[in-house]
Amino acid sequence: MILEGVVTTLDEFGNVNVAPMGPIVDASMERLLLRPFQTSTTFQNLKRSQQGVFHITDDVLLIAQAAISQLKAQPPMFAAKKIDGNVIADACRWYEFVVESIGETEIRTEIEARVVHSERLRDFVGFHRARHAVIEAAILATRLHILESSDVDRQMSHLKVIVDKTADETSQSAFQLLEDYIVGYAES
Amino acid sequence: MILEGVVTTLDEFGNVNVAPMGPIVDASMERLLLRPFQTSTTFQNLKRSQQGVFHITDDVLLIAQAAISQLKAQPPMFAAKKIDGNVIADACRWYEFVVESIGETEIRTEIEARVVHSERLRDFVGFHRARHAVIEAAILATRLHILESSDVDRQMSHLKVIVDKTADETSQSAFQLLEDYIVGYAES
Repeated sequence: MILEGVVTTLDEFGNVNVAPMGPIVDASMERLLLRPFQTSTTFQNLKRSQQGVFHITDDVLLIAQAAISQLKAQPPMFAAKKIDGNVIADACRWYEFVVESIGETEIRTEIEARVVHSERLRDFVGFHRARHAVIEAAILATRLHILESSDVDRQMSHLKVIVDKTADETSQSAFQLLEDYIVGYAES
Repeated sequence: MILEGVVTTLDEFGNVNVAPMGPIVDASMERLLLRPFQTSTTFQNLKRSQQGVFHITDDVLLIAQAAISQLKAQPPMFAAKKIDGNVIADACRWYEFVVESIGETEIRTEIEARVVHSERLRDFVGFHRARHAVIEAAILATRLHILESSDVDRQMSHLKVIVDKTADETSQSAFQLLEDYIVGYAES
């Protein structure tokens, strides 16, 4: 099962990187298979430090901003408990992990990780169509270089209907941010 | 904000009805605005008993079955704590509510309810693309009488790509059930 969330990792100077990530997990959440691209900061950091934090969150504005590298500011964080890393304070749950193996023969790497500590902070909202539409839009936004723009436009119009019908303010802003980014990409 | 979940209500003989429902809620979850159709069992039961239970769940097979009235069996339930009603034992969270007002001038009614008791049982899985695709498919399945079949087909093929990529076994079964139902409807 692939769960969409957010990973934080540290570089050699202790700077935190916040990135969306869809690891393959089992129901127990004891192991994660992360698949960052070789070119990503997450991959570089995990290769160096061998540890990180995976978060389940329903904060789609954070996910949208991170997906297109437009985080306005680092979200509030606190120190992880069992590893050297940072926990996003507004997340629903977090999973501190250590890397067990790295497969880097492909551009998209495969990193096996073991969860060494996890905690919950608050409830995940549940099935909210607009927030999920933002996730789909964020995934589109990160794949613009491999997708047909007509296909992206069609999917975005369809998602926009759902957002207009069911959004709260946060998911509306997040969707708008992604829409602007996609339009900017098409025009560039 | 509209959250998609499941409502249980009781009829005059104590029989439980399980129905998917997308009430409008605020962040506090202290009040729900339910909008069942006048023709629905949920509406009849709420009008009579003035109480019910709203559940947040990530069990998309239950939601899919309930959406097309094909519940194989009642899910395991236990008695609600503050009202006369039933709680689905596998739900993530539940909200026992009492009805404060019923607007039934439209076919789709508006029922204002106040939450009198809520508890959590387990974590909601998080953003899982396949499970959310099942929710979208379930919504399509309940609107076949008002949607163009070509539009339904196009949306279902798109959702199927997401399910094939990211599904666990439960969401795969749930999606298949809805697909079969939609094909059966088109052929009938």
